Amino acid sequence: MTRPSPARVGQRLDDIDTPALLLDLDAFEHNLDALDRTLAGRTIRVRPHAKSHKCPDIARIQVARGAVGVCCQKVSEAEVLVEGGIEDVLISNEVVSPAKIDRVVALARRARIGVLADHPEAVDLLAAAAAKAQVRLDVLVEVDVGAGRCGTPPGEPAAALAARIAAHPSLRFAGIHAYQGAAQHLRAPDERRNAIAQAVDKVHATLSALRARGLDADVVTGAGTGTYPIEAASGVYTELQPGSYIFMDADYGRNLDAAGESVHAFRQSLFLLATVMSRPTESRAVVDVGLKAHSVDSGMPLVADLTGAHYTKASDEHGVIEIDPGTPLPLGSKIRLIPGHCDPTVNLHDWLVCLRGDRVEAVWPISGRGAFS
Amino acid sequence: MTRPSPARVGQRLDDIDTPALLLDLDAFEHNLDALDRTLAGRTIRVRPHAKSHKCPDIARIQVARGAVGVCCQKVSEAEVLVEGGIEDVLISNEVVSPAKIDRVVALARRARIGVLADHPEAVDLLAAAAAKAQVRLDVLVEVDVGAGRCGTPPGEPAAALAARIAAHPSLRFAGIHAYQGAAQHLRAPDERRNAIAQAVDKVHATLSALRARGLDADVVTGAGTGTYPIEAASGVYTELQPGSYIFMDADYGRNLDAAGESVHAFRQSLFLLATVMSRPTESRAVVDVGLKAHSVDSGMPLVADLTGAHYTKASDEHGVIEIDPGTPLPLGSKIRLIPGHCDPTVNLHDWLVCLRGDRVEAVWPISGRGAFS
Repeated sequence: MTRPSPARVGQRLDDIDTPALLLDLDAFEHNLDALDRTLAGRTIRVRPHAKSHKCPDIARIQVARGAVGVCCQKVSEAEVLVEGGIEDVLISNEVVSPAKIDRVVALARRARIGVLADHPEAVDLLAAAAAKAQVRLDVLVEVDVGAGRCGTPPGEPAAALAARIAAHPSLRFAGIHAYQGAAQHLRAPDERRNAIAQAVDKVHATLSALRARGLDADVVTGAGTGTYPIEAASGVYTELQPGSYIFMDADYGRNLDAAGESVHAFRQSLFLLATVMSRPTESRAVVDVGLKAHSVDSGMPLVADLTGAHYTKASDEHGVIEIDPGTPLPLGSKIRLIPGHCDPTVNLHDWLVCLRGDRVEAVWPISGRGAFS
Repeated sequence: MTRPSPARVGQRLDDIDTPALLLDLDAFEHNLDALDRTLAGRTIRVRPHAKSHKCPDIARIQVARGAVGVCCQKVSEAEVLVEGGIEDVLISNEVVSPAKIDRVVALARRARIGVLADHPEAVDLLAAAAAKAQVRLDVLVEVDVGAGRCGTPPGEPAAALAARIAAHPSLRFAGIHAYQGAAQHLRAPDERRNAIAQAVDKVHATLSALRARGLDADVVTGAGTGTYPIEAASGVYTELQPGSYIFMDADYGRNLDAAGESVHAFRQSLFLLATVMSRPTESRAVVDVGLKAHSVDSGMPLVADLTGAHYTKASDEHGVIEIDPGTPLPLGSKIRLIPGHCDPTVNLHDWLVCLRGDRVEAVWPISGRGAFS
């Protein structure tokens, strides 16, 4: 049930079938460079988040550029990435169901696999499965450093769970996971800085509690595209997990900027190609990209390249574009949209059409599309 | 890149991998019966919308129950449905790009295919492609009856376009498409009745303008799950296109009811199965179903079966559940969710796990998943 590719290598932009998910390779490579540049002189490791792209081709490029490995959120994503040649994958999420834990353990025979825990029952299930399979599994404690989602409280509760991990011969306590997801889209630089300062305090408290129990966190991992320069400068994080930086989206574009912690070091590389399929009035066009080709959880997409056209409403298969007077948008013309939120939009597509200028240079399979289990 | 099925025939509900999209077959069959019951005694034709399910197994069941065929929104969906054995498919949407028009024409050799137009340029493109392929294609004029999306104005503009279609020997003017999409989710029965009354006026005006040009609309097609009894009683619609009635969703559940035009004749048959993967606090659980497994465009999913648990926030791979005191929701337990909006949620899944009671009776491929081109 994989869909046919909307494009062939060598085609021009105008000949690509729509809807299509486009990657501007120049902007993508700029973003890879920009991350390296903002981290120049630091010894911190980079482990990009593959949940954004779900594409082994991109993961391999990230590793070839020096990433220690990648993160992902789901066991099935890790399977796709290991199958695609990635040798070090952190599942930056809890895994609690026995059938999934068996898959994690099986995968740990083929690659270096880490997984998170925030509950003693889950630790014991991981330990039993790893012991049965005679593998030693890396387990990190997820600490809630302010996001209010998963994770143990910082300090002693986290250290107690780490001790439980360390007590199992089939597990290795590999460090702490301290991702402040809620900080990534805070608009003002000061808000982001304050949120990460609080996260750093919680990491310090946890490291102290670990030391009091004679435990060390080899890895303190976290950070995203919105805040990673702050974690990088913190002195406590050893590993960064930016994901969206390769693509960017309309929502990240609304983050305000400050020198030195700039999400705007990154350029928009990800676009949706749409066709104008109806021109019912002077001020309205309808395009063929709706809810099944992009995710509106963070707002509507933006129209790239044209200032007088605004995507105002999405239905399942349609997008309504309001047009200012004098803006040309004839029936059958194609326009590029900037997705509201890159990660769930990528997950709707089977193929990433990679362009150099207006020429298709490659078409990469999004092999982890739908890998949500 | 099709994902493995989360379930096997014969398995019990509790053994299904998550996230999974579930179909309660008893409720599904109840809904098929309920549609028949509300239309008993009318001669109106039913052409269910397959954009909701994208599943040839379901389309075949609908046709076996007397549907004249199905609708879909995209050429690639029509290809999947014809491949799956459906012999009469209306693409209830405009198709304007030459490459797609060639596919429509190719498909018209294998099945009865209809397509909409709302612009003379598109009519001429359809005519040229059909003439070249030596097929005769059914084209319906889409009339904007109040939805404010695609479509010609009612009356003379619609009749003029119909005349243009009729003038092409390779096309057949097959009728008018008069779907009032914006009325489907109006909450109050009176609002829906008024919106459809206005749509019916616009249909009448269009039929008069057609007659003045010596043209007849064999088909007047439209209506959805929220309003179809009103169109059925109008005397002008000849064909109904309900789609969501087989599944229902949280958003349709918010429509208020009135005797005789009841969306609540239908039961919820579509569910998401989720696992509790974290219990960080007494009042919070986190499940493994986030934005990549359901669409939040019409609001958050509802928790089925449990009154004291509320899905309040979705991130890419997580759903936060707020729990009232005393509600049991242990780590690793599974819960069913009612999707906020069925159509784009179905499109995120490769498989529909069909249950009879708590036993898997079938697993149907969602063959049109991702068929958005």
